Amino acid sequence: MAIGNSAHTTLPLNQRRFNMTHPSSYETLSVRSDRGVLFVEMFAPPMNLLGPALVRDLVSVIENLQSNDSHRVVVFSSRDPEYFISHVDVTKVAEYREAAAKLTGEASIGLLFRHLSAIDTISIAQIEGRARGAGSEFALACDMQFAATETAVFSQFESALGLVPGGGGMQHLVRTVGRGRALEILLSANDFPASLAEHYGWINRAIPAVDLAKFVESLAMRIAAFPSAAQAAIKGRVNAVALASPDDFRTDSDLFGKLVREPAVQLRMKRAVQLGFQSREPERNLGELLDNLDD
Amino acid sequence: MAIGNSAHTTLPLNQRRFNMTHPSSYETLSVRSDRGVLFVEMFAPPMNLLGPALVRDLVSVIENLQSNDSHRVVVFSSRDPEYFISHVDVTKVAEYREAAAKLTGEASIGLLFRHLSAIDTISIAQIEGRARGAGSEFALACDMQFAATETAVFSQFESALGLVPGGGGMQHLVRTVGRGRALEILLSANDFPASLAEHYGWINRAIPAVDLAKFVESLAMRIAAFPSAAQAAIKGRVNAVALASPDDFRTDSDLFGKLVREPAVQLRMKRAVQLGFQSREPERNLGELLDNLDD
Amino acid sequence: MAIGNSAHTTLPLNQRRFNMTHPSSYETLSVRSDRGVLFVEMFAPPMNLLGPALVRDLVSVIENLQSNDSHRVVVFSSRDPEYFISHVDVTKVAEYREAAAKLTGEASIGLLFRHLSAIDTISIAQIEGRARGAGSEFALACDMQFAATETAVFSQFESALGLVPGGGGMQHLVRTVGRGRALEILLSANDFPASLAEHYGWINRAIPAVDLAKFVESLAMRIAAFPSAAQAAIKGRVNAVALASPDDFRTDSDLFGKLVREPAVQLRMKRAVQLGFQSREPERNLGELLDNLDD
Repeated sequence: MAIGNSAHTTLPLNQRRFNMTHPSSYETLSVRSDRGVLFVEMFAPPMNLLGPALVRDLVSVIENLQSNDSHRVVVFSSRDPEYFISHVDVTKVAEYREAAAKLTGEASIGLLFRHLSAIDTISIAQIEGRARGAGSEFALACDMQFAATETAVFSQFESALGLVPGGGGMQHLVRTVGRGRALEILLSANDFPASLAEHYGWINRAIPAVDLAKFVESLAMRIAAFPSAAQAAIKGRVNAVALASPDDFRTDSDLFGKLVREPAVQLRMKRAVQLGFQSREPERNLGELLDNLDD
Repeated sequence: MAIGNSAHTTLPLNQRRFNMTHPSSYETLSVRSDRGVLFVEMFAPPMNLLGPALVRDLVSVIENLQSNDSHRVVVFSSRDPEYFISHVDVTKVAEYREAAAKLTGEASIGLLFRHLSAIDTISIAQIEGRARGAGSEFALACDMQFAATETAVFSQFESALGLVPGGGGMQHLVRTVGRGRALEILLSANDFPASLAEHYGWINRAIPAVDLAKFVESLAMRIAAFPSAAQAAIKGRVNAVALASPDDFRTDSDLFGKLVREPAVQLRMKRAVQLGFQSREPERNLGELLDNLDD
Repeated sequence: MAIGNSAHTTLPLNQRRFNMTHPSSYETLSVRSDRGVLFVEMFAPPMNLLGPALVRDLVSVIENLQSNDSHRVVVFSSRDPEYFISHVDVTKVAEYREAAAKLTGEASIGLLFRHLSAIDTISIAQIEGRARGAGSEFALACDMQFAATETAVFSQFESALGLVPGGGGMQHLVRTVGRGRALEILLSANDFPASLAEHYGWINRAIPAVDLAKFVESLAMRIAAFPSAAQAAIKGRVNAVALASPDDFRTDSDLFGKLVREPAVQLRMKRAVQLGFQSREPERNLGELLDNLDD
């Protein structure tokens, strides 16, 4: 599986955005390669749900990054300006978990995301739109997170459905934002705009939407030009302290897997879907929607 | 000991505030129950010192929260707009510690507070006025902290008296605000306004006083309506990383207990009391008062 | 080696600044003693490189602080308003490491800095100008960091040269600012102004340059007047959680030592020096200079 290669393109950014028609073997991703940076744009209509197709493609990208050293940095963004990754597709839990197992041998999104955090390739999440549930967890699994001030929204809403974040969000948040803020995020199931997410330390920085892509590209290319051995050593030393163990990820993932099969949780998810959960328009204000699950 | 129950009251907030005359067996607390949330208002004149009476009542509230599952969230506030909890009553150390032992079997405020952090009930501190010493530690023991921007003041001033925080403040602060800021807070013994406390990560957020009660009530009720099993799992997973061990709390508590008996510290506390320590008016600016202990 | 003693001076601050002509056995430091606080001003022209002379003097200061209890707090500042400590002198790695070994028995800047973090004396970094590489790590080794909003700049630029921070910066940053921000700082090799460093939690606070010296002096004297036994206990309890082990510091230090001898890194450092690295003027914008190493 070859990664699309348009190295050293000189198209302006806005043209690149709508011009990624080069052949690619990905169903949900467009990729562009430029001076050691792989730009990966996610597009899984209608709302970038993390289902089997997107997981399968992310597994392929990671395998490609590891199989050769042509890309030192990978940037993940979304073609959909309203949804970075909305969350997992709750109607296809078994399928997307199975797709994740192809890389790690375990049917767990948490362990897939941890794998991304642990490889030498440096990953940057460039977030426009909603990053809820596994979308937030994917961003946290990246090495850095930069989000559009005006449009990015973060949430770990699992508790509203009777679930826990199974993709590592609890592990990252408690270590990054502290106990009180982690519990607020995890128990309130609320939407957090980019500015508050930055204030809490959930992400590196909120950046005006108009500047975001240029900021991330410039940072990614700068990093890609520096020597790799030291970078791998740095990432290893940071992960030794800040990246939770596989066991911690596995425990969270198993908790999710156990709760998601409970009849009461199934009923609650069904009720949520009836109210618009997993639909593009109603999820714009998912935080509010979740307030009405008991009505 | 029954918790006062006025469930589903529809009184506006400002009337509720001065209308809590229903029978209660608490000496220093007024309680109100509403849709799964227990609102606990502290009132231990003249200045909400944490003495034997307040500790006894807090022990009872915690026992009640644990004895049945009718309340999923507890909100702690103060009826005194200038003092949330001022600090421990240094003239009654043996007595209030003994009162704490009723719950945990150990005469330690730190282990009492840790007990609150560890139970399934979700606790929110709604802070107006001064929260110094054990007052700050009690807020930190709650799962979240929201404070009035204009009036809330935080301080761990123990070192000015030759003491250490014995109620868990060192454990929480070093994990939440980092080494440099924790040492500044603990060694400066200074007053930190709510905005700076928020900036340092000491609390979740500073909120305009006029909006605080409504914000906290809304958040508490939202959380109380979500399924409890997942919430308990989340709190357990967060505590596994962010809540220090009983041994760590015990060590800090024992350090306090040892230092507080030292003649030099006793003398310093006596001098402080002469200057106004433990009196309502002089403690408004305790941070400054402590500068003059050697004059 | 005696520490200069001008206790209870009443000179205004701005006169003190240019009036430190009292005899001192330090080559690169001016010291002033006032009510239990030792003010140490670094001056190693042309740009406060951390070379053998400055390391030797810092070792002496630490030894003096430990040999008697006349100073409870030490404040480190720079006489050069543009450079706090620029970074290590890469042309004298063996020599400055050997100078560090005099205190700790190990030729490692990281273990020297960790020693400062672990002693009872409370240390405050008062930062004007650039604190890059080991300059940032020295500030992080102090117990608190206050920086001039207008002039202070922080950077861990080692990765641009193919190196890792060997002085403890990785250990402090990952514990203080979280995984995402630590990786951004360490991998971008960028310059961070004081306000952003404060926002990330790299330092305690950015303070307007005109107020900085007065703020720090007032804080230092307040702390120096409080009882020492409790302060030592507090610092010990905080370090037990937040100060990485000697092994962690040693590993980072050894990584630096191994990488700095690699031919490719030597070549890269040589190229950097040709472009102005280790020169006062070109290093004003070191962040930009490092972008051009591959041209």
